[in-house]
Amino acid sequence: MQRLHLNRFMVGGAFLAALSVTGLRAEEGMWTFDNPPAKLIQEKYNFTLTPAWLEHVRLSSVRLNDGGSGSFVSPHGLLLTNHHVARGQLQKNSTAQRDYIRDGFYAATAAEEMKSPDLEVNVLVSLENVTGRVQQALQGARTPEQEFAARKSAIAAIERESQQNTGFRSDVVTLYQGGEYWLYRYKKYTDVRLVFAPEQQIAFFGGDPDNFTYPRYDLDMALFRVYEDNRPVESKNYLQWNPQGAADGELVFVVGHPGSTQRLNTLAELESERDTGLPTILKILRNRIETLKKYSATGAEPARQSASVIFGLENSFKALEGRLKGLLDKRVMDAKRADEERFRARVMNDASWKAAYGGAWDQIASAERLLNTRNKERSFRGLYSQLANLAQTIVQYGVEVKKPDGERLPGYHEAQLESMRMQLFSPAPIYPEMEIARIAGALELDVAESGAEDPFIKIVLNGRTPRQAAEALVRGSKLADPAARRQLIEGGEAAVAASPDTMIVLARQLDPMRRELIKWTEDKVQAVKERAGEQLGKARFAAFGKSTYPDATFTLRLSYGQVKGYPMNGTAAAPKTTLYGLYDRAASFDYKEPFQLPARYVERRAALELSTPLNFVTTNDIIGGNSGSPVINRAGEVVGLIFDGNIESLVGDFVYEGETNRAVAVHTAGMTEALRKLYDAGNLADELLTGKR
Amino acid sequence: MQRLHLNRFMVGGAFLAALSVTGLRAEEGMWTFDNPPAKLIQEKYNFTLTPAWLEHVRLSSVRLNDGGSGSFVSPHGLLLTNHHVARGQLQKNSTAQRDYIRDGFYAATAAEEMKSPDLEVNVLVSLENVTGRVQQALQGARTPEQEFAARKSAIAAIERESQQNTGFRSDVVTLYQGGEYWLYRYKKYTDVRLVFAPEQQIAFFGGDPDNFTYPRYDLDMALFRVYEDNRPVESKNYLQWNPQGAADGELVFVVGHPGSTQRLNTLAELESERDTGLPTILKILRNRIETLKKYSATGAEPARQSASVIFGLENSFKALEGRLKGLLDKRVMDAKRADEERFRARVMNDASWKAAYGGAWDQIASAERLLNTRNKERSFRGLYSQLANLAQTIVQYGVEVKKPDGERLPGYHEAQLESMRMQLFSPAPIYPEMEIARIAGALELDVAESGAEDPFIKIVLNGRTPRQAAEALVRGSKLADPAARRQLIEGGEAAVAASPDTMIVLARQLDPMRRELIKWTEDKVQAVKERAGEQLGKARFAAFGKSTYPDATFTLRLSYGQVKGYPMNGTAAAPKTTLYGLYDRAASFDYKEPFQLPARYVERRAALELSTPLNFVTTNDIIGGNSGSPVINRAGEVVGLIFDGNIESLVGDFVYEGETNRAVAVHTAGMTEALRKLYDAGNLADELLTGKR
Repeated sequence: MQRLHLNRFMVGGAFLAALSVTGLRAEEGMWTFDNPPAKLIQEKYNFTLTPAWLEHVRLSSVRLNDGGSGSFVSPHGLLLTNHHVARGQLQKNSTAQRDYIRDGFYAATAAEEMKSPDLEVNVLVSLENVTGRVQQALQGARTPEQEFAARKSAIAAIERESQQNTGFRSDVVTLYQGGEYWLYRYKKYTDVRLVFAPEQQIAFFGGDPDNFTYPRYDLDMALFRVYEDNRPVESKNYLQWNPQGAADGELVFVVGHPGSTQRLNTLAELESERDTGLPTILKILRNRIETLKKYSATGAEPARQSASVIFGLENSFKALEGRLKGLLDKRVMDAKRADEERFRARVMNDASWKAAYGGAWDQIASAERLLNTRNKERSFRGLYSQLANLAQTIVQYGVEVKKPDGERLPGYHEAQLESMRMQLFSPAPIYPEMEIARIAGALELDVAESGAEDPFIKIVLNGRTPRQAAEALVRGSKLADPAARRQLIEGGEAAVAASPDTMIVLARQLDPMRRELIKWTEDKVQAVKERAGEQLGKARFAAFGKSTYPDATFTLRLSYGQVKGYPMNGTAAAPKTTLYGLYDRAASFDYKEPFQLPARYVERRAALELSTPLNFVTTNDIIGGNSGSPVINRAGEVVGLIFDGNIESLVGDFVYEGETNRAVAVHTAGMTEALRKLYDAGNLADELLTGKR
Repeated sequence: MQRLHLNRFMVGGAFLAALSVTGLRAEEGMWTFDNPPAKLIQEKYNFTLTPAWLEHVRLSSVRLNDGGSGSFVSPHGLLLTNHHVARGQLQKNSTAQRDYIRDGFYAATAAEEMKSPDLEVNVLVSLENVTGRVQQALQGARTPEQEFAARKSAIAAIERESQQNTGFRSDVVTLYQGGEYWLYRYKKYTDVRLVFAPEQQIAFFGGDPDNFTYPRYDLDMALFRVYEDNRPVESKNYLQWNPQGAADGELVFVVGHPGSTQRLNTLAELESERDTGLPTILKILRNRIETLKKYSATGAEPARQSASVIFGLENSFKALEGRLKGLLDKRVMDAKRADEERFRARVMNDASWKAAYGGAWDQIASAERLLNTRNKERSFRGLYSQLANLAQTIVQYGVEVKKPDGERLPGYHEAQLESMRMQLFSPAPIYPEMEIARIAGALELDVAESGAEDPFIKIVLNGRTPRQAAEALVRGSKLADPAARRQLIEGGEAAVAASPDTMIVLARQLDPMRRELIKWTEDKVQAVKERAGEQLGKARFAAFGKSTYPDATFTLRLSYGQVKGYPMNGTAAAPKTTLYGLYDRAASFDYKEPFQLPARYVERRAALELSTPLNFVTTNDIIGGNSGSPVINRAGEVVGLIFDGNIESLVGDFVYEGETNRAVAVHTAGMTEALRKLYDAGNLADELLTGKR
């Protein structure tokens, strides 16, 4: 399970919501570190969450810019995460000659550790409530548009100031849909070297069919080492490795970065997502998958280039399909409706609340309706091109950085520029033939949906077929070379304006159209929804206090739960799986794709203790973005590695259903056994167990 | 999966129906041997079903009176069936000292083979269409009651005459809900000796949770040897053992005795079952299970006595729950409604059909309504007692056998008496303490549902508590002794009338009430429904010809299909499981009940080839009663042993859904491996493979 990259849908998307007034379900919640569920845990498990425990696990946890989580697991900077989080870096380091995704990687010595092209690792070093400062900035603003601008400006100022004063990456996070604003400061690491990754075939054993399901038999792990000043980071903030794992029923914690949930969204937002948002993105994803599968089938090298992307697309497709299924489930929507009606009745029964917050639901509903009037433009003007994205960034960059920080487009704020430049100048390869296939495929969908007379289509095609346009755009661009990109950025607006690069020329042509759409969305939709969301956030605190957790925002959260099987398809799913099960599932499909085993698993089978646990499930409340999170016991030791949720968890975007919702993790016993007996990585296992290199 | 014993609900139950006018789904159907789907199989699999092939598999197949199927698998009378079909006989041969259910059984020599107390095996030796003769007998009858009596009498005469002329057990079978009547003649064997049964724990590994589900890891097999004149039956009609089993996608057949389906029932009947029949029987089963579990908890010996019964009850409960879920599924009922509307429209569009058959649906609907007015009497006057059932049979016997054959109660016809006597005089033990618990538990439910003033309750309790009444009834009866039963039967009506046995006294008191209810049900409900059913059967043949198969009737059927996995809970279920999977599932639950392994599986694990297939799934259309059926390949060899259906198949009572409906079978490779490596039964394996003892 990967963090789902839905940014294009987040622009006008739904981050404003009403509080569920039903009580929390047992073990529900992705809690912020300023408001951990200490009382609930004390009552149910008789365990005291101390400030020291919380600080230790927070400083041992990391966020990866590739969209996942991880944790330090040795005093020498060893970082544990999922293979599928590391996969992008493996892909970028691979070549036609050396396929690390297929073959895996192990650096037996420090010298062999392999630098990641553009991986960034962040540790949350402090949290500060800045709600007052943001809300104060809105005083005097009269319209939603004015409020929107003031809020944006205030947030950019807080981030810039913090970064300048502390040197830390500084993000203002909107929690409770605007009920609170927090400043999160991160210590950033950019020298991250790969130490170990198994073969994709065992990391993702069972492929797309088994993805998002359980029972599972995946060694979805990778180990990096984090460096600073060319030396491994040495720190006491790491999690001790417990090779026994956790027992059935044991209390466990997951610390990580859940990407996004929509549990507090209004019914109008959910209906809009059900009827427009999700069907649209599924249509787009289907187009991307078909396009790339066709490209993949043209040869071994195209297959290698595209495998990682197809993997991510199929992952998203299955997750979003499950999400849509949840919204189509009458019981889910009925429960949401009942929640909203009760919350709304409570607000309407208090005259002052009614006056201050009572209009918010209808405002959000009409903003959603308005947004959907431009769904075609928002959705079917995509090129699905890395080069085009880079060109768009380069064209916007020169203009944006000249503006006052608070008025820039999202992503171009002062505090964000360093990370943006790391991506912009990444040496990761871009494959021209794959680019052509992607652009041609995307344009075909755009034409089918928007028609030949759409202004975007007319500019891009200019009388050509999608394929011809794609060929011309890619062949006429030098942006695959990081040096060419650097030259343009350093040359500033003038260089960009003068560039004959086909991708830059196109980006310049499309720029006004794109800016208009962003501006319209901000003014007419986002501004209205943020204002209404803040009202509902305030109404919620007024009515219920801070008794619950905010929706996920790809920021650090704590979840608690226990190792536990569940009722499944007429029977019981076990709390864990073993190596026996891996061999059963492979043999039961006659070792056919995607159930084949890497050679070493066949050759070395006799060396393995087959009853060793491989994966396990817990009741922890997680979501995409938690991939790579450590599973931690009371002693603060790592006992597992989150890598997925079961199929029943896909509705978790909207509700947590503890009866069957399960997080799926790799077991420390399985990882230890594999490192020692299959990968000759005894040294690495020793470092995990003893802390000594 | 066991055949479900629903006879009390079949009395007034629903065996009349309309034909589905939708086309057959691929591989749908439980076909009679007079009308095999030769054309469908030829087209899809390019395989020719020859008369010789059909005759050979028919004569190699058997029906067991314990409610299952089986097949001859050696030229020396070896009979393969399920452990759970043999379970009742194992229970009856077990004692407090020797528990064959727990420990299994293997007769290494002929002398050790263990006689079954009351197992009867039947081979279908001929089929004859007697529709004309039955329908002719109805001429002259004016009312449904007259027709009912005439039909009953004609059928009894055909059966009696055939038995007298041929010596074979002779049953007239109602097919297509009265569209056809067939005379089935059986060669009967009553000397059936147990050769091999594994431990219950491996035969039913995974217990109630895994029952009716897949993936599975069960060695649900038993081998008997059939004797005649004290010598093993030697015959060419047996299935050759193929230890390789069948490959993924391979064409396979299942030959056996599916118990009952209701695919051709009218909507009114299905609604009645959904709203009254199934909720009632589930309530009763819950009472029986709770009662016996309480009894079981009182000690090791009560646990042993009741285990087999609880097993059967839980099996039925899970199956019927699945069936009810099917009827509560809107899609299922919508499809049924659409089918019925199309069929009805077709009949109504033809004036002569309309006149002859058009009233049938409404007649069935009002018969169902009428039946449900006496649901309480039909359902909550049960004693759940073996002794009371024997007493009832003894009291009725003397009266019934004096009547003309055609006028007797069901079960007492001349052709049925021999089998009835075998059950009546069975030496199988009856446990008084368990009887008391069962009667007391049943009476508590009866009182709660029918009230203290109900005439049945007043007679049975007579001022006592349920427990007191149960104690008195059991302590005052000698019927646990087969000799006492024989004495009463042989003493005739006078002996029965004079008997002071408490159970006989009670049966005499209840007899008029019971006869009234049977008579009322026959006259007011069954007669109406049989007549209407015949009309719909004729309408069906008129409109569609004999293009489909009749509902299951616990008579011999052929089904075709292929080995095939299916989409399950977000992923793919594999076509087979292996011994690896058995060890995985046991270890994944830490070997807790019901996932523990028999000792030999732990001790001898190293001797096993763990990739050996253990269970597999096929698309064959089966239902309870098919348990123990052989899975047969094109060559007529046995490649597996049906023992269950998956959870998705439970709706199979009403519809066949080929996408996910699967039969679950034990693989011949797994059986062979276990016999040789775990049970030291190499001789038996050799007999299966070579035919030589």
